[in-house]
Amino acid sequence: MTAAELGAFLRTELPQMFDYDDLAIEHADGQTCRLRQRFRQNMLRPGGTVSGATLMALADCAMYVVVLSAIGPVSLAVTTNLNINFLRKGGPGQDVLAEARLLKLGKRLAVGEVTLLSGNSPDPIAHVTATYSIPTK
Amino acid sequence: MTAAELGAFLRTELPQMFDYDDLAIEHADGQTCRLRQRFRQNMLRPGGTVSGATLMALADCAMYVVVLSAIGPVSLAVTTNLNINFLRKGGPGQDVLAEARLLKLGKRLAVGEVTLLSGNSPDPIAHVTATYSIPTK
Amino acid sequence: MTAAELGAFLRTELPQMFDYDDLAIEHADGQTCRLRQRFRQNMLRPGGTVSGATLMALADCAMYVVVLSAIGPVSLAVTTNLNINFLRKGGPGQDVLAEARLLKLGKRLAVGEVTLLSGNSPDPIAHVTATYSIPTK
Amino acid sequence: MTAAELGAFLRTELPQMFDYDDLAIEHADGQTCRLRQRFRQNMLRPGGTVSGATLMALADCAMYVVVLSAIGPVSLAVTTNLNINFLRKGGPGQDVLAEARLLKLGKRLAVGEVTLLSGNSPDPIAHVTATYSIPTK
Repeated sequence: MTAAELGAFLRTELPQMFDYDDLAIEHADGQTCRLRQRFRQNMLRPGGTVSGATLMALADCAMYVVVLSAIGPVSLAVTTNLNINFLRKGGPGQDVLAEARLLKLGKRLAVGEVTLLSGNSPDPIAHVTATYSIPTK
Repeated sequence: MTAAELGAFLRTELPQMFDYDDLAIEHADGQTCRLRQRFRQNMLRPGGTVSGATLMALADCAMYVVVLSAIGPVSLAVTTNLNINFLRKGGPGQDVLAEARLLKLGKRLAVGEVTLLSGNSPDPIAHVTATYSIPTK
Repeated sequence: MTAAELGAFLRTELPQMFDYDDLAIEHADGQTCRLRQRFRQNMLRPGGTVSGATLMALADCAMYVVVLSAIGPVSLAVTTNLNINFLRKGGPGQDVLAEARLLKLGKRLAVGEVTLLSGNSPDPIAHVTATYSIPTK
Repeated sequence: MTAAELGAFLRTELPQMFDYDDLAIEHADGQTCRLRQRFRQNMLRPGGTVSGATLMALADCAMYVVVLSAIGPVSLAVTTNLNINFLRKGGPGQDVLAEARLLKLGKRLAVGEVTLLSGNSPDPIAHVTATYSIPTK
């Protein structure tokens, strides 16, 4: 699936999950993908940290996108495990980027990692690994 | 902090995180807590599963509440790690409950587990462990 | 499988993994199990902490035992994910106990948690969640 | 610390953890490190999979080495969290390599990831993230 097809699929499948005006799939190639979520003040918690809820939802979505980009539109693929390490605060007013990469694409399970970044800074603000269960046909 | 004090603190500290009309702190005692999030249709993803984003945000909040119930109002305590296993779909139209329990309360780190439940069913829909970093005074 | 059958199965399947003179399956019932590893000086790292390697190997084994106690002797069930939080040092000279509990037993995946204890102390020294992939027949 | 200094430190600090004739620190630079554990038949479990215990112990050691390579010989740095995803079986008779990389080096916590490889294959057999707690001086 292309980035445009993936975007359309997400809007249909997960209509309530994001304000899709703020979410762009910048790249997806069956192995990796990159998502950008536009900065909004309501992403932040006290102290100016991007909220865990924002980062976890975006990382989970990025994993879904990279899995779909590899296996096609399977709406019932579900996350079975997600592990996140929160690392840094992120810069004020910066978009949040999620760069996902598949570590394994098996018949039943897909495993990947997602690096969460703040604007152009190379230092990740969080790091995620996640497992998806792929339904049998 | 009592459940009422914790609720007021959350509304002030994390105003945008939840619709607090839908979130109740039913119990908190410095060792455990229980939160209830009222069922809303927009919690669900395709197939009727409660979305990962909903469960992760609620679990993270429950950990924050149990930590605060133990150490008092420290707004800069931050999650450093969260691991979630998604287990079951949950029943249609059911509230989601989060029961948190501290496994360790150290000077620098607090570790806990959160069991996520669907209505009155005893079978958890997800299980979380999380670590909080406690700022030095 | 009974505790005695499980012990015999482990000795055959994983002969090199443990000194089985030091490892006892004290209980196993298809939902929970308890393993005891006898204290040995070589469990410890500097500072008197039980080594992570000891705890992770024992927890992984306890998960295997509780899964086998539920589904019978399936030698190719494999761990897909294990997450451990190290909590406390444990008492000097104490046995290490692993109490495992299944959170979910599905057709393809089993998920459980393991509490690691030092002697008779109720305070866990580590906490584990793990996922096993169950081969299709 | 150089690779040679790190090797000497490990032999002194963790004498019982490995057969150091089988473990080489091939590289360490304060940001990354690479360890090689020589293939031994007793690494394997049924089906020819490298045992989880082998991979977890090696990954934990690699994290310790990369942290020490950054902060110097601190014997009381301890793992607080380790999460591992098991991905593939690995090739028969192959050494196991652990490539660690720091994601964050803070004053209190260091977070890193470790990719576990089988011989020369580029496909990881397991992937680990881990957190170390650094003692205050």
